[in-house]
Amino acid sequence: MSATGARLEFWYDFASTYSYLSAMRIEALAAAAGAEIAWKPFLLGPIFAAQGWTTSPFNLYPAKGRNMVRDIERFAAERGLGFALPQRFPQSSLMAARLALVGSDEGWIAPFTRAVYVAEFAHGADISDGQALGPILQSLHLDSQKIFTRIEQGDIKDRLRQQTAEAQARGIFGAPSFLVGDELFWGDDRLEQALAWASRG
Amino acid sequence: MSATGARLEFWYDFASTYSYLSAMRIEALAAAAGAEIAWKPFLLGPIFAAQGWTTSPFNLYPAKGRNMVRDIERFAAERGLGFALPQRFPQSSLMAARLALVGSDEGWIAPFTRAVYVAEFAHGADISDGQALGPILQSLHLDSQKIFTRIEQGDIKDRLRQQTAEAQARGIFGAPSFLVGDELFWGDDRLEQALAWASRG
Repeated sequence: MSATGARLEFWYDFASTYSYLSAMRIEALAAAAGAEIAWKPFLLGPIFAAQGWTTSPFNLYPAKGRNMVRDIERFAAERGLGFALPQRFPQSSLMAARLALVGSDEGWIAPFTRAVYVAEFAHGADISDGQALGPILQSLHLDSQKIFTRIEQGDIKDRLRQQTAEAQARGIFGAPSFLVGDELFWGDDRLEQALAWASRG
Repeated sequence: MSATGARLEFWYDFASTYSYLSAMRIEALAAAAGAEIAWKPFLLGPIFAAQGWTTSPFNLYPAKGRNMVRDIERFAAERGLGFALPQRFPQSSLMAARLALVGSDEGWIAPFTRAVYVAEFAHGADISDGQALGPILQSLHLDSQKIFTRIEQGDIKDRLRQQTAEAQARGIFGAPSFLVGDELFWGDDRLEQALAWASRG
């Protein structure tokens, strides 16, 4: 717990561009607000599928997609971040999310999450498989082979399914989302407001 | 022109809740930034229809709609605004938009726009026809009968169609949107950023 007891759940999908923006700044902002972060990777895919979408709304609605790219470019420039959309968008985020759950148990979820987002959206890398994710684990001085074995076990797969079902049950429909108790905030542009909510005691 | 030459186009639909938030604060923010506002009412309906939507995405996707209501409630509380969603949502904004075009010619578009939004989203009124819109015109000391006759003329109807076609051609897919030249910003939460862009000279 933080000193104040303030707590924010950060729900994100590794395929989500706006989650990248939040992942890169949430720790500094949460520290300033005296709030603890619960990192909650989940999959948007099943939630989108449930409302009839077969891909990202940024692909389904091209004008919206073009604006998203320009919007992220502006924020990235303002915040000193790189931005390059991967050739294939959205990326499959399944393996990264399973790895993050192991990181959640073992204490490396935050740096892992940032490293995946930087590879994917600052350098435009494919993060869908072990070829990109292995070196990221190794850069964090982790035993990638052991961790890749770990995510093949049923309990990790089940936990990701449960976490995604929980997201949907709690009203999450996009990423990033922030939950303070049952109070839902959607979008990187709501992060400050969510932290203020968490800290109001 | 403003003293600095900074200019921002404010594209809005009278049915849009987030446009209400912007309409209530854009003049103060633009004045502070030394920017001139071009008020651009248009209709989202044809743009939504072109991407296969028969109603607002807030109705099509209930989780998104619930979050919108809560999100607006939080901002309204923060900004000292009332908020009550009308029974029928979205409202038909056709007549209000035509009236606003007359207001654009005659210099009363800004107070008219605010008055319509307050009736609709602070008091939950139906703004789809003359019954609500007549008293709003009268409250601004305008000749409502003359103006209702004016909007039946073909040129006003054509101008609204053209303005909506222009919105779509320039990449607008939601409201409010802000254009600074060709630079598009979407959402009330991008208003400050759009004004900064307009003012950077």
